Amino acid sequence: MGLWFTEKQTNHFGITFDIEKTLHSEKTEFQQLDMVQTKEFGRMLLLDDMVMTTESDEFVYHEMIVHVPLFTHPDPKHVLVVGGGDGGAIREILKHPSVEKATLVEIDGKVIEYSKQYLPTIAGSLDDPRVEVKVADGFLHIAESEQAYDIIMVDSTEPVGPAVKLFEKGFYEGISRALKEDGILVAQTDNPWFQHDLLKTVYGDVSSIFPVSRVYTANIPTYPSGLWTFTMGSKKHDPLSVPEDRFHDIDTKYYTRELHQASFALPRFVLDGENPNKQGEK
Amino acid sequence: MGLWFTEKQTNHFGITFDIEKTLHSEKTEFQQLDMVQTKEFGRMLLLDDMVMTTESDEFVYHEMIVHVPLFTHPDPKHVLVVGGGDGGAIREILKHPSVEKATLVEIDGKVIEYSKQYLPTIAGSLDDPRVEVKVADGFLHIAESEQAYDIIMVDSTEPVGPAVKLFEKGFYEGISRALKEDGILVAQTDNPWFQHDLLKTVYGDVSSIFPVSRVYTANIPTYPSGLWTFTMGSKKHDPLSVPEDRFHDIDTKYYTRELHQASFALPRFVLDGENPNKQGEK
Repeated sequence: MGLWFTEKQTNHFGITFDIEKTLHSEKTEFQQLDMVQTKEFGRMLLLDDMVMTTESDEFVYHEMIVHVPLFTHPDPKHVLVVGGGDGGAIREILKHPSVEKATLVEIDGKVIEYSKQYLPTIAGSLDDPRVEVKVADGFLHIAESEQAYDIIMVDSTEPVGPAVKLFEKGFYEGISRALKEDGILVAQTDNPWFQHDLLKTVYGDVSSIFPVSRVYTANIPTYPSGLWTFTMGSKKHDPLSVPEDRFHDIDTKYYTRELHQASFALPRFVLDGENPNKQGEK
Repeated sequence: MGLWFTEKQTNHFGITFDIEKTLHSEKTEFQQLDMVQTKEFGRMLLLDDMVMTTESDEFVYHEMIVHVPLFTHPDPKHVLVVGGGDGGAIREILKHPSVEKATLVEIDGKVIEYSKQYLPTIAGSLDDPRVEVKVADGFLHIAESEQAYDIIMVDSTEPVGPAVKLFEKGFYEGISRALKEDGILVAQTDNPWFQHDLLKTVYGDVSSIFPVSRVYTANIPTYPSGLWTFTMGSKKHDPLSVPEDRFHDIDTKYYTRELHQASFALPRFVLDGENPNKQGEK
Protein backbone atom coordinates (compact mmCIF):
# COMPACT_ATOMS: atom_id res chain seq x y z
CA MET A 1 0.00 0.00 0.00
CA GLY A 2 1.34 3.43 -0.91
CA LEU A 3 0.78 5.96 1.87
CA TRP A 4 0.90 9.64 0.96
CA PHE A 5 0.73 12.56 3.36
CA THR A 6 -0.75 15.78 2.00
CA GLU A 7 -0.25 19.15 3.65
CA LYS A 8 -3.02 21.46 2.57
CA GLN A 9 -1.00 24.67 2.37
CA THR A 10 -4.20 26.55 1.59
CA ASN A 11 -7.80 25.33 1.49
CA HIS A 12 -7.37 24.52 -2.19
CA PHE A 13 -3.70 23.65 -2.71
CA GLY A 14 -1.20 21.31 -1.14
CA ILE A 15 1.97 19.29 -1.40
CA THR A 16 2.03 15.54 -1.08
CA PHE A 17 4.75 13.16 0.08
CA ASP A 18 5.26 9.44 -0.43
CA ILE A 19 5.74 8.11 3.12
CA GLU A 20 7.92 5.10 3.81
CA LYS A 21 6.96 4.84 7.46
CA THR A 22 5.87 6.75 10.53
CA LEU A 23 8.63 6.90 13.11
CA HIS A 24 6.74 8.64 15.89
CA SER A 25 3.32 10.20 16.39
CA GLU A 26 2.18 11.97 19.53
CA LYS A 27 -0.19 14.61 20.79
CA THR A 28 2.07 16.72 22.97
CA GLU A 29 0.90 19.31 25.49
CA PHE A 30 1.01 21.89 22.69
CA GLN A 31 0.50 20.28 19.32
CA GLN A 32 0.34 17.17 17.19
CA LEU A 33 3.88 15.94 16.51
CA ASP A 34 4.70 13.47 13.75
CA MET A 35 8.06 12.21 12.59
CA VAL A 36 7.96 10.34 9.29
CA GLN A 37 10.37 8.84 6.79
CA THR A 38 9.63 10.26 3.33
CA LYS A 39 10.91 8.76 0.10
CA GLU A 40 11.87 12.11 -1.43
CA PHE A 41 13.19 14.31 1.37
CA GLY A 42 14.48 11.94 4.05
CA ARG A 43 13.00 12.27 7.50
CA MET A 44 10.41 14.96 8.08
CA LEU A 45 9.06 16.64 11.22
CA LEU A 46 5.42 17.72 11.17
CA LEU A 47 3.65 19.87 13.77
CA ASP A 48 -0.14 20.10 13.52
CA ASP A 49 0.11 18.55 10.03
CA MET A 50 2.45 21.29 8.77
CA VAL A 51 5.92 20.49 7.45
CA MET A 52 8.49 21.97 9.82
CA THR A 53 11.67 20.55 8.42
CA THR A 54 13.04 17.77 6.24
CA GLU A 55 16.52 16.31 6.15
CA SER A 56 16.90 17.24 2.48
CA ASP A 57 15.95 20.90 2.39
CA GLU A 58 16.35 22.10 6.00
CA PHE A 59 19.70 23.65 5.17
CA VAL A 60 18.12 26.50 3.24
CA TYR A 61 15.94 27.76 6.07
CA HIS A 62 18.53 27.27 8.79
CA GLU A 63 21.41 28.84 6.89
CA MET A 64 19.36 31.84 5.84
CA ILE A 65 17.75 32.62 9.19
CA VAL A 66 21.21 32.47 10.80
CA HIS A 67 23.98 33.65 8.49
CA VAL A 68 22.30 36.80 7.23
CA PRO A 69 22.00 38.37 10.72
CA LEU A 70 25.23 36.83 12.05
CA PHE A 71 27.31 38.33 9.24
CA THR A 72 25.43 41.61 9.59
CA HIS A 73 26.48 41.95 13.25
CA PRO A 74 30.20 42.74 13.65
CA ASP A 75 30.69 40.62 16.76
CA PRO A 76 27.75 38.38 17.71
CA LYS A 77 28.53 36.78 21.06
CA HIS A 78 25.19 35.79 22.54
CA VAL A 79 22.38 34.60 20.30
CA LEU A 80 18.85 33.63 21.32
CA VAL A 81 16.60 31.33 19.31
CA VAL A 82 12.90 31.41 20.18
CA GLY A 83 11.33 28.17 18.96
CA GLY A 84 13.62 26.17 16.71
CA GLY A 85 13.49 23.02 18.81
CA ASP A 86 14.81 20.94 15.90
CA GLY A 87 18.22 22.51 16.57
CA GLY A 88 19.03 23.48 12.97
CA ALA A 89 19.46 27.18 13.71
CA ILE A 90 21.73 26.36 16.66
CA ARG A 91 23.92 24.20 14.41
CA GLU A 92 24.42 27.10 12.01
CA ILE A 93 24.97 29.69 14.77
CA LEU A 94 27.85 27.65 16.14
CA LYS A 95 29.69 27.95 12.81
CA HIS A 96 30.48 31.56 13.78
CA PRO A 97 33.61 31.62 15.97
CA SER A 98 32.60 34.86 17.74
CA VAL A 99 29.60 33.12 19.34
CA GLU A 100 30.18 32.37 23.02
CA LYS A 101 26.69 31.31 23.91
CA ALA A 102 23.57 30.24 22.02
CA THR A 103 20.35 29.98 23.97
CA LEU A 104 17.38 28.00 22.71
CA VAL A 105 13.95 28.63 24.24
CA GLU A 106 11.47 26.10 22.91
CA ILE A 107 8.01 25.73 24.43
CA ASP A 108 7.60 22.08 23.52
CA GLY A 109 10.25 19.78 24.99
CA LYS A 110 8.98 16.92 22.85
CA VAL A 111 10.14 18.68 19.70
CA ILE A 112 13.66 18.76 21.10
CA GLU A 113 13.50 15.17 22.35
CA TYR A 114 12.32 13.65 19.06
CA SER A 115 14.53 15.86 16.91
CA LYS A 116 17.55 14.61 18.87
CA GLN A 117 16.39 11.03 18.44
CA TYR A 118 15.34 11.09 14.77
CA LEU A 119 17.08 14.10 13.19
CA PRO A 120 20.67 13.89 14.45
CA THR A 121 22.12 15.78 11.46
CA ILE A 122 19.88 18.72 12.40
CA ALA A 123 19.71 18.54 16.20
CA GLY A 124 23.20 17.18 16.84
CA SER A 125 24.60 20.49 18.07
CA LEU A 126 22.11 20.93 20.91
CA ASP A 127 24.53 19.19 23.31
CA ASP A 128 27.40 21.54 22.48
CA PRO A 129 28.79 23.21 25.65
CA ARG A 130 28.12 26.68 24.19
CA VAL A 131 24.40 25.87 23.98
CA GLU A 132 21.82 26.44 26.70
CA VAL A 133 18.48 24.74 26.09
CA LYS A 134 15.42 25.96 27.98
CA VAL A 135 12.02 24.35 27.67
CA ALA A 136 9.94 27.45 28.32
CA ASP A 137 7.55 29.99 26.84
CA GLY A 138 9.56 32.26 24.54
CA PHE A 139 7.11 35.10 25.02
CA LEU A 140 7.74 35.11 28.78
CA HIS A 141 11.48 34.63 28.33
CA ILE A 142 11.59 37.74 26.15
CA ALA A 143 9.50 39.71 28.66
CA GLU A 144 12.04 38.91 31.38
CA SER A 145 15.16 39.75 29.34
CA GLU A 146 16.83 43.13 29.02
CA GLN A 147 19.88 44.17 26.95
CA ALA A 148 20.88 40.53 27.00
CA TYR A 149 21.38 39.41 23.39
CA ASP A 150 23.24 40.47 20.27
CA ILE A 151 20.81 38.62 18.02
CA ILE A 152 17.35 37.17 18.62
CA MET A 153 15.79 34.79 16.11
CA VAL A 154 12.12 33.95 16.01
CA ASP A 155 12.20 30.46 14.54
CA SER A 156 8.54 29.74 15.08
CA THR A 157 5.83 27.66 13.48
CA GLU A 158 3.26 29.37 11.32
CA PRO A 159 0.94 31.77 13.21
CA VAL A 160 -1.47 29.17 14.50
CA GLY A 161 -1.53 27.39 17.87
CA PRO A 162 1.20 28.28 20.37
CA ALA A 163 2.97 30.61 17.91
CA VAL A 164 0.20 33.21 17.47
CA LYS A 165 1.59 35.67 19.99
CA LEU A 166 5.04 35.42 18.41
CA PHE A 167 3.70 37.48 15.49
CA GLU A 168 2.34 40.39 17.56
CA LYS A 169 3.77 43.88 17.87
CA GLY A 170 4.17 43.64 21.66
CA PHE A 171 6.47 40.67 21.17
CA TYR A 172 8.76 42.60 18.82
CA GLU A 173 8.82 45.51 21.32
CA GLY A 174 9.90 43.05 24.00
CA ILE A 175 12.59 41.72 21.67
CA SER A 176 13.87 45.25 21.15
CA ARG A 177 14.27 45.61 24.94
CA ALA A 178 15.90 42.19 25.21
CA LEU A 179 18.51 43.11 22.60
CA LYS A 180 21.72 45.00 23.30
CA GLU A 181 22.10 48.52 21.92
CA ASP A 182 23.25 47.31 18.51
CA GLY A 183 21.17 44.13 18.48
CA ILE A 184 19.36 42.46 15.60
CA LEU A 185 16.01 40.68 15.37
CA VAL A 186 15.21 38.24 12.62
CA ALA A 187 11.85 36.47 12.33
CA GLN A 188 10.51 33.97 9.85
CA THR A 189 7.49 35.66 8.28
CA ASP A 190 5.93 33.00 6.08
CA ASN A 191 5.34 33.40 2.35
CA PRO A 192 4.04 36.32 0.30
CA TRP A 193 1.87 34.23 -2.01
CA PHE A 194 -0.68 32.92 0.45
CA GLN A 195 0.12 35.05 3.54
CA HIS A 196 0.91 38.44 2.09
CA ASP A 197 -1.12 40.26 4.78
CA LEU A 198 0.99 38.69 7.53
CA LEU A 199 4.23 39.93 6.00
CA LYS A 200 2.79 43.42 5.56
CA THR A 201 1.65 43.56 9.19
CA VAL A 202 4.89 42.23 10.66
CA TYR A 203 7.01 44.47 8.47
CA GLY A 204 4.91 47.47 9.52
CA ASP A 205 5.35 46.57 13.20
CA VAL A 206 9.07 45.86 12.95
CA SER A 207 9.80 49.03 10.97
CA SER A 208 7.95 51.11 13.59
CA ILE A 209 10.26 49.74 16.31
CA PHE A 210 13.68 49.30 14.66
CA PRO A 211 15.71 51.98 12.84
CA VAL A 212 16.73 49.47 10.14
CA SER A 213 14.09 47.04 8.83
CA ARG A 214 14.46 44.73 5.87
CA VAL A 215 12.81 41.71 4.29
CA TYR A 216 14.74 38.95 2.57
CA THR A 217 13.79 35.66 0.91
CA ALA A 218 14.92 32.09 0.37
CA ASN A 219 13.68 29.17 -1.72
CA ILE A 220 12.42 26.29 0.42
CA PRO A 221 10.78 23.54 -1.67
CA THR A 222 8.67 22.02 1.13
CA TYR A 223 7.26 25.33 2.44
CA PRO A 224 4.14 26.93 0.93
CA SER A 225 4.89 28.55 -2.46
CA GLY A 226 8.59 27.74 -2.13
CA LEU A 227 9.34 31.42 -1.46
CA TRP A 228 10.01 32.14 2.20
CA THR A 229 10.46 35.52 3.83
CA PHE A 230 12.47 36.67 6.82
CA THR A 231 11.98 40.07 8.41
CA MET A 232 14.93 41.75 10.05
CA GLY A 233 14.83 44.60 12.55
CA SER A 234 18.18 46.09 13.49
CA LYS A 235 19.07 48.84 15.95
CA LYS A 236 22.21 49.86 14.08
CA HIS A 237 23.76 47.49 11.56
CA ASP A 238 22.44 47.30 8.00
CA PRO A 239 22.53 43.87 6.32
CA LEU A 240 23.04 45.61 2.97
CA SER A 241 26.20 47.42 4.11
CA VAL A 242 28.29 44.60 5.50
CA PRO A 243 32.02 45.29 4.99
CA GLU A 244 33.53 42.71 2.63
CA ASP A 245 36.19 41.73 5.18
CA ARG A 246 33.56 40.68 7.71
CA PHE A 247 32.57 37.67 5.62
CA HIS A 248 34.63 34.66 6.59
CA ASP A 249 34.59 31.26 4.95
CA ILE A 250 31.80 29.11 6.20
CA ASP A 251 30.57 25.67 5.24
CA THR A 252 27.17 26.12 3.58
CA LYS A 253 25.01 24.53 0.89
CA TYR A 254 22.79 27.56 0.16
CA TYR A 255 24.18 30.78 1.66
CA THR A 256 26.87 32.73 -0.16
CA ARG A 257 27.88 36.35 0.40
CA GLU A 258 26.43 37.19 -3.02
CA LEU A 259 23.13 35.56 -2.06
CA HIS A 260 23.18 37.46 1.24
CA GLN A 261 22.94 40.70 -0.72
CA ALA A 262 20.69 39.33 -3.48
CA SER A 263 18.12 37.87 -1.08
CA PHE A 264 16.96 41.41 -0.23
CA ALA A 265 15.85 42.08 -3.81
CA LEU A 266 12.11 41.46 -3.62
CA PRO A 267 9.57 40.73 -6.34
CA ARG A 268 7.53 43.76 -7.39
CA PHE A 269 4.31 42.38 -5.84
CA VAL A 270 6.04 41.98 -2.49
CA LEU A 271 7.43 45.53 -2.62
CA ASP A 272 3.97 46.80 -3.48
CA GLY A 273 2.30 44.74 -0.75
CA GLU A 274 -0.04 43.22 -3.29
CA ASN A 275 -1.75 39.88 -3.20
CA PRO A 276 -0.39 38.11 -6.30
CA ASN A 277 -2.99 35.42 -6.10
CA LYS A 278 -6.33 37.14 -6.42
CA GLN A 279 -7.78 33.94 -7.87
CA GLY A 280 -7.27 32.29 -4.51
CA GLU A 281 -9.34 34.90 -2.68
CA LYS A 282 -12.66 33.61 -3.93
CA MET B 1 -17.47 15.55 -4.64
CA GLY B 2 -14.10 17.27 -4.28
CA LEU B 3 -11.85 16.59 -7.24
CA TRP B 4 -8.12 17.13 -6.80
CA PHE B 5 -5.47 16.91 -9.48
CA THR B 6 -2.01 15.85 -8.36
CA GLU B 7 1.11 16.41 -10.41
CA LYS B 8 3.76 13.98 -9.33
CA GLN B 9 6.77 16.24 -9.71
CA THR B 10 9.00 13.32 -8.81
CA ASN B 11 8.13 9.67 -8.21
CA HIS B 12 7.67 10.44 -4.51
CA PHE B 13 6.53 14.06 -4.29
CA GLY B 14 3.84 16.19 -5.82
CA ILE B 15 1.58 19.20 -5.68
CA THR B 16 -2.18 18.92 -5.58
CA PHE B 17 -4.91 21.30 -6.75
CA ASP B 18 -8.59 21.58 -5.85
CA ILE B 19 -10.30 21.55 -9.26
CA GLU B 20 -13.57 23.39 -9.85
CA LYS B 21 -14.09 22.00 -13.32
CA THR B 22 -12.45 20.72 -16.44
CA LEU B 23 -12.82 23.17 -19.32
CA HIS B 24 -11.21 21.11 -22.07
CA SER B 25 -9.42 17.80 -22.37
CA GLU B 26 -7.89 16.45 -25.55
CA LYS B 27 -5.19 14.16 -26.84
CA THR B 28 -3.53 16.30 -29.51
CA GLU B 29 -1.13 15.06 -32.16
CA PHE B 30 1.73 15.69 -29.69
CA GLN B 31 0.52 15.44 -26.12
CA GLN B 32 -2.34 15.27 -23.65
CA LEU B 33 -3.79 18.78 -23.20
CA ASP B 34 -6.02 19.71 -20.27
CA MET B 35 -7.45 23.07 -19.34
CA VAL B 36 -8.96 23.21 -15.85
CA GLN B 37 -10.39 25.77 -13.46
CA THR B 38 -8.55 25.54 -10.13
CA LYS B 39 -9.81 27.07 -6.91
CA GLU B 40 -6.40 28.45 -5.87
CA PHE B 41 -4.64 29.60 -9.04
CA GLY B 42 -7.40 30.37 -11.54
CA ARG B 43 -7.30 28.55 -14.85
CA MET B 44 -4.47 26.13 -15.45
CA LEU B 45 -3.00 24.56 -18.59
CA LEU B 46 -1.60 21.05 -18.29
CA LEU B 47 0.42 19.18 -20.91
CA ASP B 48 1.01 15.47 -20.29
CA ASP B 49 -0.20 15.99 -16.69
CA MET B 50 2.43 18.65 -16.01
CA VAL B 51 1.49 22.18 -14.98
CA MET B 52 2.46 24.56 -17.77
CA THR B 53 0.94 27.78 -16.55
CA THR B 54 -1.73 29.17 -14.23
CA GLU B 55 -3.47 32.52 -14.34
CA SER B 56 -2.20 33.38 -10.86
CA ASP B 57 1.52 32.73 -11.09
CA GLU B 58 2.29 32.79 -14.83
CA PHE B 59 3.61 36.35 -14.55
CA VAL B 60 6.78 35.21 -12.81
CA TYR B 61 7.93 32.83 -15.51
CA HIS B 62 6.92 35.04 -18.42
CA GLU B 63 8.42 38.23 -17.02
CA MET B 64 11.68 36.56 -16.10
CA ILE B 65 12.24 34.64 -19.35
CA VAL B 66 11.63 37.87 -21.27
CA HIS B 67 12.79 40.97 -19.43
CA VAL B 68 16.19 39.68 -18.36
CA PRO B 69 17.40 39.11 -21.95
CA LEU B 70 15.46 42.03 -23.43
CA PHE B 71 17.04 44.53 -21.05
CA THR B 72 20.43 42.88 -21.58
CA HIS B 73 20.30 43.54 -25.34
CA PRO B 74 20.71 47.25 -26.22
CA ASP B 75 18.23 47.20 -29.11
CA PRO B 76 16.17 44.01 -29.47
CA LYS B 77 14.17 44.28 -32.69
CA HIS B 78 13.33 40.72 -33.68
CA VAL B 79 12.64 38.10 -31.03
CA LEU B 80 11.88 34.42 -31.55
CA VAL B 81 10.02 32.24 -29.07
CA VAL B 82 10.34 28.47 -29.55
CA GLY B 83 7.41 26.83 -27.81
CA GLY B 84 5.45 29.18 -25.59
CA GLY B 85 2.12 28.58 -27.29
CA ASP B 86 0.25 30.06 -24.33
CA GLY B 87 1.43 33.48 -25.52
CA GLY B 88 2.68 34.77 -22.17
CA ALA B 89 6.23 35.40 -23.36
CA ILE B 90 4.91 37.24 -26.42
CA ARG B 91 2.80 39.51 -24.18
CA GLU B 92 5.90 40.50 -22.19
CA ILE B 93 8.12 40.92 -25.28
CA LEU B 94 5.69 43.47 -26.72
CA LYS B 95 6.18 45.69 -23.65
CA HIS B 96 9.59 46.63 -25.11
CA PRO B 97 9.14 49.48 -27.60
CA SER B 98 12.24 48.53 -29.61
CA VAL B 99 10.64 45.26 -30.68
CA GLU B 100 9.45 45.35 -34.29
CA LYS B 101 8.62 41.69 -34.68
CA ALA B 102 8.04 38.75 -32.36
CA THR B 103 7.86 35.31 -33.92
CA LEU B 104 6.30 32.35 -32.13
CA VAL B 105 7.07 28.85 -33.36
CA GLU B 106 4.92 26.34 -31.49
CA ILE B 107 4.71 22.72 -32.59
CA ASP B 108 1.21 22.12 -31.22
CA GLY B 109 -1.45 24.42 -32.69
CA LYS B 110 -3.94 23.17 -30.12
CA VAL B 111 -1.96 24.83 -27.31
CA ILE B 112 -2.35 28.17 -29.10
CA GLU B 113 -6.02 27.57 -29.89
CA TYR B 114 -7.09 26.66 -26.36
CA SER B 115 -4.87 29.27 -24.70
CA LYS B 116 -6.58 31.94 -26.82
CA GLN B 117 -9.97 30.55 -25.86
CA TYR B 118 -9.45 29.95 -22.13
CA LEU B 119 -6.46 32.10 -21.09
CA PRO B 120 -7.11 35.49 -22.71
CA THR B 121 -5.05 37.41 -20.12
CA ILE B 122 -2.05 35.31 -21.15
CA ALA B 123 -2.61 34.68 -24.86
CA GLY B 124 -4.34 37.98 -25.71
CA SER B 125 -1.31 39.48 -27.46
CA LEU B 126 -0.95 36.72 -30.03
CA ASP B 127 -3.14 38.71 -32.45
CA ASP B 128 -0.96 41.83 -32.22
CA PRO B 129 0.23 42.97 -35.70
CA ARG B 130 3.87 42.73 -34.58
CA VAL B 131 3.43 39.01 -33.89
CA GLU B 132 3.93 36.20 -36.37
CA VAL B 133 2.61 32.82 -35.21
CA LYS B 134 3.90 29.67 -36.89
CA VAL B 135 2.66 26.21 -36.06
CA ALA B 136 5.85 24.33 -36.82
CA ASP B 137 8.73 22.33 -35.40
CA GLY B 138 11.03 24.77 -33.60
CA PHE B 139 14.01 22.50 -34.14
CA LEU B 140 13.57 22.69 -37.93
CA HIS B 141 12.80 26.40 -37.83
CA ILE B 142 16.10 27.00 -36.05
CA ALA B 143 17.97 24.79 -38.51
CA GLU B 144 16.66 26.93 -41.39
CA SER B 145 17.43 30.32 -39.79
CA GLU B 146 20.67 32.29 -40.04
CA GLN B 147 21.64 35.61 -38.42
CA ALA B 148 17.93 36.33 -38.15
CA TYR B 149 17.17 37.13 -34.53
CA ASP B 150 18.37 39.42 -31.75
CA ILE B 151 17.01 37.12 -29.08
CA ILE B 152 15.81 33.52 -29.12
CA MET B 153 13.86 32.08 -26.21
CA VAL B 154 13.36 28.39 -25.64
CA ASP B 155 10.05 28.36 -23.79
CA SER B 156 9.61 24.62 -23.85
CA THR B 157 7.97 21.95 -21.76
CA GLU B 158 10.12 19.78 -19.57
CA PRO B 159 12.48 17.47 -21.47
CA VAL B 160 9.99 14.74 -22.19
CA GLY B 161 7.90 14.15 -25.32
CA PRO B 162 8.26 16.65 -28.15
CA ALA B 163 10.69 18.86 -26.18
CA VAL B 164 13.55 16.37 -25.74
CA LYS B 165 15.59 17.64 -28.67
CA LEU B 166 15.21 21.23 -27.43
CA PHE B 167 17.66 20.40 -24.64
CA GLU B 168 20.43 19.03 -26.89
CA LYS B 169 23.74 20.68 -27.74
CA GLY B 170 23.09 20.62 -31.48
CA PHE B 171 19.98 22.72 -30.91
CA TYR B 172 21.93 25.41 -29.07
CA GLU B 173 24.54 25.40 -31.86
CA GLY B 174 21.73 25.98 -34.34
CA ILE B 175 20.43 28.81 -32.18
CA SER B 176 23.86 30.42 -32.19
CA ARG B 177 23.78 30.40 -36.03
CA ALA B 178 20.22 31.71 -36.07
CA LEU B 179 21.19 34.67 -33.86
CA LYS B 180 22.70 37.90 -35.11
CA GLU B 181 26.30 38.72 -34.20
CA ASP B 182 25.34 40.14 -30.81
CA GLY B 183 22.37 37.85 -30.18
CA ILE B 184 21.19 36.26 -26.97
CA LEU B 185 19.74 32.83 -26.20
CA VAL B 186 17.69 32.16 -23.10
CA ALA B 187 16.27 28.73 -22.26
CA GLN B 188 14.16 27.49 -19.39
CA THR B 189 16.27 24.82 -17.72
CA ASP B 190 14.00 23.32 -15.06
CA ASN B 191 14.85 23.20 -11.36
CA PRO B 192 18.08 22.37 -9.54
CA TRP B 193 16.43 20.32 -6.77
CA PHE B 194 15.11 17.41 -8.80
CA GLN B 195 16.82 18.02 -12.18
CA HIS B 196 20.27 19.21 -11.23
CA ASP B 197 21.97 17.05 -13.89
CA LEU B 198 19.93 18.70 -16.63
CA LEU B 199 21.03 22.19 -15.61
CA LYS B 200 24.67 21.07 -15.42
CA THR B 201 24.52 19.54 -18.90
CA VAL B 202 22.77 22.47 -20.54
CA TYR B 203 25.02 25.02 -18.86
CA GLY B 204 28.05 23.05 -20.02
CA ASP B 205 26.75 22.97 -23.59
CA VAL B 206 25.75 26.65 -23.66
CA SER B 207 29.03 27.83 -22.15
CA SER B 208 30.97 25.86 -24.77
CA ILE B 209 29.13 27.72 -27.55
CA PHE B 210 28.57 31.27 -26.23
CA PRO B 211 31.23 33.69 -24.93
CA VAL B 212 28.94 34.80 -22.10
CA SER B 213 26.91 32.17 -20.26
CA ARG B 214 24.90 32.70 -17.10
CA VAL B 215 22.22 31.01 -15.03
CA TYR B 216 19.49 32.91 -13.20
CA THR B 217 16.49 31.90 -11.10
CA ALA B 218 12.90 32.81 -10.26
CA ASN B 219 10.36 31.60 -7.73
CA ILE B 220 7.39 29.87 -9.38
CA PRO B 221 5.02 28.28 -6.84
CA THR B 222 3.42 25.76 -9.21
CA TYR B 223 6.67 24.46 -10.72
CA PRO B 224 8.69 21.68 -9.09
CA SER B 225 10.59 22.92 -6.01
CA GLY B 226 9.42 26.50 -6.64
CA LEU B 227 12.94 27.43 -7.81
CA TRP B 228 13.20 27.74 -11.56
CA THR B 229 16.34 28.25 -13.61
CA PHE B 230 16.98 29.99 -16.91
CA THR B 231 20.22 29.59 -18.81
CA MET B 232 21.45 32.45 -20.96
CA GLY B 233 24.03 32.29 -23.71
CA SER B 234 25.10 35.61 -25.16
CA LYS B 235 27.49 36.44 -28.01
CA LYS B 236 28.44 39.83 -26.61
CA HIS B 237 26.21 41.47 -24.01
CA ASP B 238 26.51 40.55 -20.33
CA PRO B 239 23.27 40.57 -18.30
CA LEU B 240 25.29 41.58 -15.24
CA SER B 241 26.70 44.71 -16.89
CA VAL B 242 23.57 46.43 -18.18
CA PRO B 243 23.97 50.22 -18.15
CA GLU B 244 21.53 51.80 -15.69
CA ASP B 245 20.05 54.06 -18.37
CA ARG B 246 18.99 51.09 -20.47
CA PHE B 247 16.31 50.12 -17.96
CA HIS B 248 13.04 51.83 -18.80
CA ASP B 249 9.86 51.70 -16.79
CA ILE B 250 7.83 48.63 -17.47
CA ASP B 251 4.64 47.23 -16.01
CA THR B 252 5.56 44.11 -14.05
CA LYS B 253 4.48 42.15 -10.99
CA TYR B 254 7.74 40.27 -10.38
CA TYR B 255 10.65 41.72 -12.37
CA THR B 256 12.54 44.74 -11.08
CA ARG B 257 15.97 45.96 -12.15
CA GLU B 258 17.29 44.98 -8.71
CA LEU B 259 15.87 41.48 -9.12
CA HIS B 260 17.40 41.29 -12.62
CA GLN B 261 20.83 41.53 -11.02
CA ALA B 262 19.97 39.52 -7.89
CA SER B 263 18.49 36.59 -9.83
CA PHE B 264 22.02 35.62 -10.96
CA ALA B 265 23.16 34.97 -7.37
CA LEU B 266 22.87 31.19 -7.11
CA PRO B 267 22.65 28.95 -4.08
CA ARG B 268 25.95 27.28 -3.18
CA PHE B 269 24.71 23.81 -4.19
CA VAL B 270 23.80 25.12 -7.66
CA LEU B 271 27.20 26.77 -8.08
CA ASP B 272 28.86 23.54 -7.00
CA GLY B 273 26.68 21.42 -9.29
CA GLU B 274 25.67 19.27 -6.36
CA ASN B 275 22.48 17.31 -5.88
CA PRO B 276 20.94 18.86 -2.76
CA ASN B 277 18.49 16.06 -2.39
CA LYS B 278 20.53 12.91 -1.93
CA GLN B 279 17.63 11.39 0.02
CA GLY B 280 15.58 11.40 -3.17
CA GLU B 281 18.15 9.39 -5.09
CA LYS B 282 17.27 6.12 -3.45
